[in-house]
Amino acid sequence: MASSIKDRVAIVGMGCTRFGELWERSASGLIIEAAQEALEDAGIEPDDVQACWIGTQSADQTGLAGLGASAPLRLQYKPVTRVENMCATGSDALRNASYAVAAGVYDIVLVLGAEKLKDTGQSGLAVTGSNPSANVANSSTAPGMFAMMATKYFARYGLAPKEGKEMLAKIVVKSHYNGSLNPRAHFQRPVSLEQVINAPIIAWPLGLFDCCGVSDGAAAAIVVPAEDARTFRPDPVFIKALQICVGPGDGAVRTDYDFTHVEETYRAGQAAYKEAGISTPRSEVSMAEVHDCFSITEATIMEDLQFSSRGRVKDDIYAEAFALKGDLPVQPDGGLKCFGHPIGASGLRMMYEMYKQLQGKAGPRQIPNPEIGLTHNMGGQPPACTVSCLIVGL
Amino acid sequence: MASSIKDRVAIVGMGCTRFGELWERSASGLIIEAAQEALEDAGIEPDDVQACWIGTQSADQTGLAGLGASAPLRLQYKPVTRVENMCATGSDALRNASYAVAAGVYDIVLVLGAEKLKDTGQSGLAVTGSNPSANVANSSTAPGMFAMMATKYFARYGLAPKEGKEMLAKIVVKSHYNGSLNPRAHFQRPVSLEQVINAPIIAWPLGLFDCCGVSDGAAAAIVVPAEDARTFRPDPVFIKALQICVGPGDGAVRTDYDFTHVEETYRAGQAAYKEAGISTPRSEVSMAEVHDCFSITEATIMEDLQFSSRGRVKDDIYAEAFALKGDLPVQPDGGLKCFGHPIGASGLRMMYEMYKQLQGKAGPRQIPNPEIGLTHNMGGQPPACTVSCLIVGL
Repeated sequence: MASSIKDRVAIVGMGCTRFGELWERSASGLIIEAAQEALEDAGIEPDDVQACWIGTQSADQTGLAGLGASAPLRLQYKPVTRVENMCATGSDALRNASYAVAAGVYDIVLVLGAEKLKDTGQSGLAVTGSNPSANVANSSTAPGMFAMMATKYFARYGLAPKEGKEMLAKIVVKSHYNGSLNPRAHFQRPVSLEQVINAPIIAWPLGLFDCCGVSDGAAAAIVVPAEDARTFRPDPVFIKALQICVGPGDGAVRTDYDFTHVEETYRAGQAAYKEAGISTPRSEVSMAEVHDCFSITEATIMEDLQFSSRGRVKDDIYAEAFALKGDLPVQPDGGLKCFGHPIGASGLRMMYEMYKQLQGKAGPRQIPNPEIGLTHNMGGQPPACTVSCLIVGL
Repeated sequence: MASSIKDRVAIVGMGCTRFGELWERSASGLIIEAAQEALEDAGIEPDDVQACWIGTQSADQTGLAGLGASAPLRLQYKPVTRVENMCATGSDALRNASYAVAAGVYDIVLVLGAEKLKDTGQSGLAVTGSNPSANVANSSTAPGMFAMMATKYFARYGLAPKEGKEMLAKIVVKSHYNGSLNPRAHFQRPVSLEQVINAPIIAWPLGLFDCCGVSDGAAAAIVVPAEDARTFRPDPVFIKALQICVGPGDGAVRTDYDFTHVEETYRAGQAAYKEAGISTPRSEVSMAEVHDCFSITEATIMEDLQFSSRGRVKDDIYAEAFALKGDLPVQPDGGLKCFGHPIGASGLRMMYEMYKQLQGKAGPRQIPNPEIGLTHNMGGQPPACTVSCLIVGL
């Protein structure tokens, strides 16, 4: 019988570089920096690592597959596996490593996520759809695809254009404020509601500030069996749920797609809550890092993850429920909004914040006594997505 | 404590397309064909699959990462993960899936490997080294790199050029004969020793027939917990060892590299034998499919896997020990030599032959009562390799 890996695997060390336009850094250099911090945090040496998983979308950047992680870290003759799952790449690397640990095959595993996204030339503004069969992606840009979500959301739930635009802007202001408290963020300046609303439009209603940045970065985690965790540190973080949901992507025009939610996020969330034993997400989840590639994405994710009622996320946004001092802080580290989205790194960057928050080490961003953290990644574009939903707690 | 997954996971269904220059087929079509055969072989429906791993090097071919497997097979809302590990890609997909099953997370997992290698334009003759830090790869072609192994091997072990060339040719003749018995092989014609020796030279001493083909193909496996295996079929194949060894690839010129063996193969073999409880590989392993990208590669692998003594593989080759009727048949299906090397598919194609042989269903290629089969993949180029070594048995 299939079973959960809840509380069977723990994270005992993490590392994260500063994110940004790191033209002068190599992917290998970023990997080394993130791994070194994670190893020191766990109190172990590189030689203690028994196996490694690396999440990266551009294999060319880091050398050939596993060798890209093996070489800079001198993981001589150890198993290294590359996992790639679009924007959920880093999270899926953590998931695969966790299964190997839960299976009892390895005792100490290093998980890496890295991307020199700036080097790829991807601007985030011109994705023409590498899957030619996805109906929405053809000739669309990423902002264009998510702008369709926004306009449909406004129409469906009766938000006037100005009203919807302001709601989205409030999300942006919240995340930029959090990023301003974070020395590892790419963008560390707060922005005002007026700045966001009046910024140049990229794809209406999404303006410049509604779009996440394009950044380089790396993050790392040390994963061990739960029963060993306290031999490494007094405050390990335990995995409560690891779920991935891959959507149809079948190229057929889905006449049932409503463009106001992402079914994969809803289903991944449901599966993760079930695995973690969470019945009331809004009250039981302490904080979340979700895939806010665009402001509208964060808004709809709040509904799909059952943090807000369908069509009513606006109420929570205006009540500042997701602010650092709200009842459910979302993107406490600044999110994709302030970190950009170096694809392989993002999932682990999110986990880094959850890990530090749970340990009470998030400095000026510290949330009071969090118990459960959730990370969410979404790759592709609705209605053809890979969504990861990972839940951790002390 | 880290433990083996020996006899904890079983393969209960497999599928494999014909390999070849399949210009008229899509990657999706190949995936569907291989998966369909595996599902029917296991006696299950697509809906029974709980999770999927796909090994493919060119994500662009099959659509976006996991979606590439999700879409054609209609694995709606299920987890699909892409694994990439150079030439060991298919084998590492099977390894990751096996860990998830061994961890008890899933009961029925589909593993896919596919590549439309012809579509990539890779000829197999012009690899310029995508890892710019690998000392050997720079500006070398694949035949050129392995030709260096051959000349060094001849020199070190005192083989005259003509003598060495004939030894390699005998490997080729053996594999082409096996391929001639296999309706799924790309090349199904036997060749004579004279044809091989007199063929145009690609990189001395490697001639046209010393190089494997460039082919398209796909293969698939259904993996379940060992305790469930006999509910699917009376003759499941159990995993005895799954090992990956990733070599240095550190860009430093390794002054200790001898160019006559691959340390990663030796180490992966040692680890796999230990995991499987094999102390005398030559007598305990019934048959093997190894990574014969070139004839010299097969020769040196025989020594690294301890099938032949160092420097003495020639004795076994001339004694026809590795022929279909020898004491340890190698490449019973024809090998990379006759199947080419569609990167994500190769590891699973090899496993398909081991699986059918163990079940006594290999037709004219049937080996009498095999008990243990070994598959071996090598990616990159010495001294910077990813090597997988998987062992299975009834």
